[in-house]
Amino acid sequence: MADFDIHILGCGSALPTTRHLPTAQVINLRDKLFMIDCGEGAQLQMRRMRIRFSRITHIFISHSHGDHCFGLPGLISTLGMLGRKGDLFIYGPEEIGTYIQNILDTFCRGMEYQVIFHPVNTQESQIVMEDRSVTVRSIPLKHRIPCCGYLFEEKPKEAHIIRDMIDFYHVPVKDIQHIKQGEDFITEEGEIIPNCRLTRPAEPPRRYAFCSDTAYDPSIIPLVENVDLLYHEATFAEADLPRAQETFHSTARQAAEIAKAAHVKKLLIGHYSARYEHLDDIQREATAVFPQTLLAEEGMSIRL
Amino acid sequence: MADFDIHILGCGSALPTTRHLPTAQVINLRDKLFMIDCGEGAQLQMRRMRIRFSRITHIFISHSHGDHCFGLPGLISTLGMLGRKGDLFIYGPEEIGTYIQNILDTFCRGMEYQVIFHPVNTQESQIVMEDRSVTVRSIPLKHRIPCCGYLFEEKPKEAHIIRDMIDFYHVPVKDIQHIKQGEDFITEEGEIIPNCRLTRPAEPPRRYAFCSDTAYDPSIIPLVENVDLLYHEATFAEADLPRAQETFHSTARQAAEIAKAAHVKKLLIGHYSARYEHLDDIQREATAVFPQTLLAEEGMSIRL
Repeated sequence: MADFDIHILGCGSALPTTRHLPTAQVINLRDKLFMIDCGEGAQLQMRRMRIRFSRITHIFISHSHGDHCFGLPGLISTLGMLGRKGDLFIYGPEEIGTYIQNILDTFCRGMEYQVIFHPVNTQESQIVMEDRSVTVRSIPLKHRIPCCGYLFEEKPKEAHIIRDMIDFYHVPVKDIQHIKQGEDFITEEGEIIPNCRLTRPAEPPRRYAFCSDTAYDPSIIPLVENVDLLYHEATFAEADLPRAQETFHSTARQAAEIAKAAHVKKLLIGHYSARYEHLDDIQREATAVFPQTLLAEEGMSIRL
Repeated sequence: MADFDIHILGCGSALPTTRHLPTAQVINLRDKLFMIDCGEGAQLQMRRMRIRFSRITHIFISHSHGDHCFGLPGLISTLGMLGRKGDLFIYGPEEIGTYIQNILDTFCRGMEYQVIFHPVNTQESQIVMEDRSVTVRSIPLKHRIPCCGYLFEEKPKEAHIIRDMIDFYHVPVKDIQHIKQGEDFITEEGEIIPNCRLTRPAEPPRRYAFCSDTAYDPSIIPLVENVDLLYHEATFAEADLPRAQETFHSTARQAAEIAKAAHVKKLLIGHYSARYEHLDDIQREATAVFPQTLLAEEGMSIRL
């Protein structure tokens, strides 16, 4: 099966600590790299994790708080210095466009590639980007400023042909592509061989949902239902619930409640507040509600 | 003697490597912190080196290339989140002012402290900032865009009184401050006691010069003459001299030539190109010309 890997470059929150880097992730999907958020230091972390800069084609930014986008100027500049020619597509709320334009005007004159910004509607879920292998949808989130998550969904794959049956019915090569796409086969004698006798179904398309930063918001549940992996922020432990509410963040328990209600296969939490030296409470509170919870950490890679 | 320490947060150049961080230094002078340049990741490096953010009062930026200023937005935001109230003064070429203003407008609304920007003349050496303990002058540099270094010079200190002589001449307490500042003492009998008999001279004021980025430029020699420590960029080894000339950078040998001609006490080199896995050539070529050469590295602290 083709790769669908999530690499965690950073999973801390706004205040710098020596334990975490600010938010940044890279998705490797069938050898294309998609970046989600780009906190300060993301490019250096990519070097450490040996992720190849040149393969990044699209960057999705959740919102214009610095811990989610202050790594963009450095990365954009570095790609220029590395001689990139191909367009780089960046998606995010309106303000991110202004931010990038200012950076391009001041620091990137004469760069040989284009940065193309697409504003994202953070109020309703829409298709943000689509190519042969993936559809990316926005997930409206509830934060202090316009903010959205992103849902990455593989395009449905072709069915697997059953070689023995293809031979048995003497299916000509020219028909195989049609059969892979679901068509029945008609023999020279006019007999209809139903597709299900010739193929095994493709693996179901995999889905990854990224939701950071957000207050507890059950309205995202239908959007992330049954995903293979849900990343949901878990900035605070339950003891700091008032602080979570005040700052439009979630507690670990709330993240787990969303995961449980949405019947996701696995939950990945992160965006830990700098106040926690250890994550024991966060971990315990999340797994109590949703046992299939993973704690994000820098350098982690998860294969879907 | 009061502290005068140079802390190296980063000494790499523009392309990120796992060996170095981009340029950033912090000077601790009599318990005030002055920052010079602020590459991406500087705030995280300060955390690692346990340098207290709150004590930074002034930041001096050499030029508007990203590897010298892309850490500013994160640092400015963090200071706001930490509840800073006191003004932060930033100095640098004009373009840095625009860059900072854009960041403040987009990311720092409602911050409780003021960022005050002072443009620096990069064409001629001028006093940029002065307080009770230090004078900071600009050093015009020769780079692809407006760029200057900075010379930090301690204010002259008071002479040390010689306690035994003070007692011997029965100098009243009220006169001691004047004597420290160089005045003679007149006894009740009208005898003039020359200051040199009552005091030992103060330590000579210490000076640190920071010069990055720049092509080889002998015109800086008179400005950095005899300094205790000269930081001079040494982006390239001699084999890459053509590349140095093309990009308005210096080789290690050229940095050492400047140090030698200026009779500085020590030379500190850095801003190494990402192309060098090891710095053996850089080191050898610099020390051949100027033996008192130190190679900057992340985490290094030098006491003047």
